[in-house]
Amino acid sequence: MHVSESRIRVRYAETDQMGVVYYANYFVWMEIARVDYCRSVGLIYQQMEAEDGVLLAVAEAHCRYRLPALYDQEVSVRTWLSDAHSRLIRFSYEMHVDGRTLAEGETKHIFCNREMRPMRLPQKYHALLGIER
Amino acid sequence: MHVSESRIRVRYAETDQMGVVYYANYFVWMEIARVDYCRSVGLIYQQMEAEDGVLLAVAEAHCRYRLPALYDQEVSVRTWLSDAHSRLIRFSYEMHVDGRTLAEGETKHIFCNREMRPMRLPQKYHALLGIER
Amino acid sequence: MHVSESRIRVRYAETDQMGVVYYANYFVWMEIARVDYCRSVGLIYQQMEAEDGVLLAVAEAHCRYRLPALYDQEVSVRTWLSDAHSRLIRFSYEMHVDGRTLAEGETKHIFCNREMRPMRLPQKYHALLGIER
Amino acid sequence: MHVSESRIRVRYAETDQMGVVYYANYFVWMEIARVDYCRSVGLIYQQMEAEDGVLLAVAEAHCRYRLPALYDQEVSVRTWLSDAHSRLIRFSYEMHVDGRTLAEGETKHIFCNREMRPMRLPQKYHALLGIER
Repeated sequence: MHVSESRIRVRYAETDQMGVVYYANYFVWMEIARVDYCRSVGLIYQQMEAEDGVLLAVAEAHCRYRLPALYDQEVSVRTWLSDAHSRLIRFSYEMHVDGRTLAEGETKHIFCNREMRPMRLPQKYHALLGIER
Repeated sequence: MHVSESRIRVRYAETDQMGVVYYANYFVWMEIARVDYCRSVGLIYQQMEAEDGVLLAVAEAHCRYRLPALYDQEVSVRTWLSDAHSRLIRFSYEMHVDGRTLAEGETKHIFCNREMRPMRLPQKYHALLGIER
Repeated sequence: MHVSESRIRVRYAETDQMGVVYYANYFVWMEIARVDYCRSVGLIYQQMEAEDGVLLAVAEAHCRYRLPALYDQEVSVRTWLSDAHSRLIRFSYEMHVDGRTLAEGETKHIFCNREMRPMRLPQKYHALLGIER
Repeated sequence: MHVSESRIRVRYAETDQMGVVYYANYFVWMEIARVDYCRSVGLIYQQMEAEDGVLLAVAEAHCRYRLPALYDQEVSVRTWLSDAHSRLIRFSYEMHVDGRTLAEGETKHIFCNREMRPMRLPQKYHALLGIER
């Protein structure tokens, strides 16, 4: 199982008046992390979108928050594919700061064309994501 | 069961280059909707935070996306309490545009003090949230 | 001179750990306010973008901050056109809470086509924005 | 004159339906860049805020947009102090992608205490910011 690792510095803009990172921002981090994951296996998301018109629409997103994240901390996000088919893929994430678990997340995606209609991922990308025939 | 309804106009800032609302923003809408819910039962969240030092920390968040939301649409969010105890509460959400379901969400929260340590919700708020003894 | 007025409730997501609204969010409010302005003179921005391929690209943005804005406050934004030509327009904004001035802003825009190249605003929209020949 | 340089990868969340970075996000980048600037001269903003209760409130912000920024581009932000006194400082920014200028910005700040009242920057920080007596 391939696992990628992303490092994200918490931005001031991401905090809220509770003094911690606002909960919706973890989903922004997951997006950064899954693009890094794709890049790490040789799939340039930007290219797939621009050249092949394949969008990765989010069908489901989930996060379990363990510890608050603080401004200026460096969050490391471990990302892996927990499921992959030609029509949908599922990413799992673990977010850490200094070895302590901040949060765990999961996102489920379906491949769509530019009109946001479901489609199969073109064959040429299958191997990169470990999709079997 | 009490259900509140919030109306949110989609902001340009909330869209992304896919031409639809970026997925993390649904969680911002849920936050607006649950504050509206609280207000509708007489619980001013801002007051609870400022006067009693009670924060509603998010422990878990989930969203299932059905249809993309578009710029300038008016989204209506129906919100209700699906679970309520003195230590945690759970909100459920249904988001609609023109009668069609956009998304369904759920958030689980624990009550915390200003140091972000779990606490029981003060008794005076129990009735408002339908928490039994 | 036509002046529109928008009312915006401060979102929790818009605050930062200083306990006030994060400074970049005022520009999001200006965007909401200028879309309201356009609507109030009969120009549906969304339509102009979708049907005529006219985008209102921001060329310059400025904000002077007077008082911090707080969570859950209702901000009213007064908006007017301080300059309007077929190639560029300038909006001015005044943001208030309970009669006190929060901030003043200004944005300058150029009309662009879908390829982000400058263009003249189609004639049919001129009267709405008070653009003379 | 000291100039710091920050590198920021454009996030998908930062784009809008025009296919480019939403204009308010440039101000988020400026914030990241000025924290980097502070760090580069030995001033840890987070520490100043937490230990000395000194906040850097934004009094004015300005951006001139030259070229649109695109998803996944690496933006480099050059930052320097264009003015520095014990009560206010001014940062200037130049944002580039591959040697082309994206935008230029400026922010003016006043030092405040936790109650958001103006104060003088404590003496011990003066030398770091080149503030003369």
